[in-house]
Amino acid sequence: MSNSATFHLLKTCPDSKARAGELITPHGVVPTPVFLPVGSQGAVKTLTPEEVKNIGVAMVLANTYHLYLRPGIPAIEKVGGLHKFMGWHDAILTDSGGYQIFSLASLRQVGDDGVVFRSHIDGSQHLITPELIIQFQESLGADIIMVLDECSAHDDSFEKVQRALARTHNWAERCQRVQKRNDQALYAIVQGGVFPELRQQSAEFLTSLEFAGYAIGGLSIGEPKEVTLAVTEQTAALLPEDKPRYLMGVGSPEDIIGSVARGIDIFDSALPTRVARNGALFTRLGRINIQNATYSQMEQPIDPECNCYTCRTFSAVYLHHLFNCRELLGYRLATIHNLAFISNLMGKIRGAILDGTFNSFKDSFLLSYKPTNEQTRLSQKQKWLESRSLNQ
Amino acid sequence: MSNSATFHLLKTCPDSKARAGELITPHGVVPTPVFLPVGSQGAVKTLTPEEVKNIGVAMVLANTYHLYLRPGIPAIEKVGGLHKFMGWHDAILTDSGGYQIFSLASLRQVGDDGVVFRSHIDGSQHLITPELIIQFQESLGADIIMVLDECSAHDDSFEKVQRALARTHNWAERCQRVQKRNDQALYAIVQGGVFPELRQQSAEFLTSLEFAGYAIGGLSIGEPKEVTLAVTEQTAALLPEDKPRYLMGVGSPEDIIGSVARGIDIFDSALPTRVARNGALFTRLGRINIQNATYSQMEQPIDPECNCYTCRTFSAVYLHHLFNCRELLGYRLATIHNLAFISNLMGKIRGAILDGTFNSFKDSFLLSYKPTNEQTRLSQKQKWLESRSLNQ
Repeated sequence: MSNSATFHLLKTCPDSKARAGELITPHGVVPTPVFLPVGSQGAVKTLTPEEVKNIGVAMVLANTYHLYLRPGIPAIEKVGGLHKFMGWHDAILTDSGGYQIFSLASLRQVGDDGVVFRSHIDGSQHLITPELIIQFQESLGADIIMVLDECSAHDDSFEKVQRALARTHNWAERCQRVQKRNDQALYAIVQGGVFPELRQQSAEFLTSLEFAGYAIGGLSIGEPKEVTLAVTEQTAALLPEDKPRYLMGVGSPEDIIGSVARGIDIFDSALPTRVARNGALFTRLGRINIQNATYSQMEQPIDPECNCYTCRTFSAVYLHHLFNCRELLGYRLATIHNLAFISNLMGKIRGAILDGTFNSFKDSFLLSYKPTNEQTRLSQKQKWLESRSLNQ
Repeated sequence: MSNSATFHLLKTCPDSKARAGELITPHGVVPTPVFLPVGSQGAVKTLTPEEVKNIGVAMVLANTYHLYLRPGIPAIEKVGGLHKFMGWHDAILTDSGGYQIFSLASLRQVGDDGVVFRSHIDGSQHLITPELIIQFQESLGADIIMVLDECSAHDDSFEKVQRALARTHNWAERCQRVQKRNDQALYAIVQGGVFPELRQQSAEFLTSLEFAGYAIGGLSIGEPKEVTLAVTEQTAALLPEDKPRYLMGVGSPEDIIGSVARGIDIFDSALPTRVARNGALFTRLGRINIQNATYSQMEQPIDPECNCYTCRTFSAVYLHHLFNCRELLGYRLATIHNLAFISNLMGKIRGAILDGTFNSFKDSFLLSYKPTNEQTRLSQKQKWLESRSLNQ
């Protein structure tokens, strides 16, 4: 696997587990810690690849489950792979779609061979196996690809999670065995729910197989934040120093910074782009909602210190007006701002790790940044999870 | 009015009434014939001002009625006017909103003073007068502004149109009388429905008042295409040579080229951007719909000869996929393509007029370009007119 994405660890924070490094991929160098905007269906919602790149993004995520259903893997292969299809010539990570199969699709039947499910779009029936998911990802041609895993719900019992874990481990081995291309880095996904014993088993088993990188899956799916952080901390500590660590589905500023402190290198989440389309914009003091009447009078940009296209070009009152009129440009401008905020945050985090000032940067950031109220967050998350199978 | 937009007629086609010229405005020179993309609410739907400019657009249209209701004229004045508000630093024309008041708003009461109506957004009651509409447009600060007119329906009787015309003429005089700023060009709007006698009266009366430019209003509102062209031809011939002529609401390629041949210099229409969001894309052979199954396999761009961002960057299958997923990026890419198509068409028309080859350009364009079937067009237009008060 000499041509596939490799990881260089450049510096570890002396006061925390935070690490700065870089991923060398066939489509460019990706500085870590890094956040990947989500382009499940082959587009970061509302944005062109040019805009995503101008924001400073070095890698995006796409989803094998979504692309398999629409437009289908052969259609993408025919135009020369996912990079060409999307018009994105930097690094791409494809998620296997395990999480989507277990959260979006209906009538699932999981067997040892694989999973039979019905499409959330048209109800058509499909069988996905570990072997197929690797074949699909090899056709798509992303720089980093993921094993197929069985995802538990955050409130599943120990026994249920344990059974899913055995299957996840078997599938990971099978994925590794059938990989043919040597220019794609295959990452394993550590599961085990909220059970430290199972997380430990999973980390030990998967690291023994020597994957190119390790993801932590099954978090940020409805459990309280302190649980997310505790499981992240425990699991990250069990993973090898010299391999990248990817925390799946985490994307709020406070969670990113907290997880970097626990040793995470890679993040992805639809949160920054999804909340943008609802008018929620990141500022260094916390999230604001552009639809609030306050902004109907504000001549300044949302964040006068922000250097994104939106803040450089438009007043808050203009953005407020666009949301008020449900004008699509508003969703774009908000998306640009939120991705720029997260991208800038990642740059500052990395700079602070390299400078040896990460801990004080983290403390000062968290002192001014007011996270969304935990109760509100959980109920929003629940609502979103429930609406997903209807509304993606 | 020495600082306001002036018009230089550069060349008239020897074989038709087609003219090439330029509008000199406080925000740049606008080559004519010109098509103005519609940004009723202060944004060309889905696009940033940067993108609109990169397409080659020199002037956009915004709508006083829409902006008066949302965000309100004072909000725009407060940030320094419409150019600043929109982030568009080239020329702007504001329509008075006469047509919108008469087609979107409900419970209208027209009196000699002005018109009382209820907002199509929240039902609130408003009075608009000719004096107010000029005051609003002076606050907005567009380069070209329009008088308030009373718009008839395409099937109104002679007597009804005649009464509306008397009011329109009175309002035009009042608009002219109260204009204070000398850096905005005020255009009159010739009305008179489909009645040659009334069109003639209107043209004669309004040209006697010496406006900076003349629009032809009350067309392309549901009447057959040959009527639109006949009234355009008759009316344009009654207008002074040295003033710009603006045909309101016309925007299909075949109508633009046919109307240029009849002496029109300025066009605006939401058609190219509206149909783009429904997946209808202009090509030199006619409109295609990207949602058709044909495009699910097409690796080439929509139009391999087109140099727009969409065609330079993406395959037809990608665009098809985005529409299939209702991904907002698809609406943007289609909008970019259609505006680029029209903008390129205007450039070719102008080049041909200056070269003395307009008639042969027109014939060869119309020979290959297959317009939308007239029956389909009329029924689509009707559906759209009916849905507007709900759906803008």
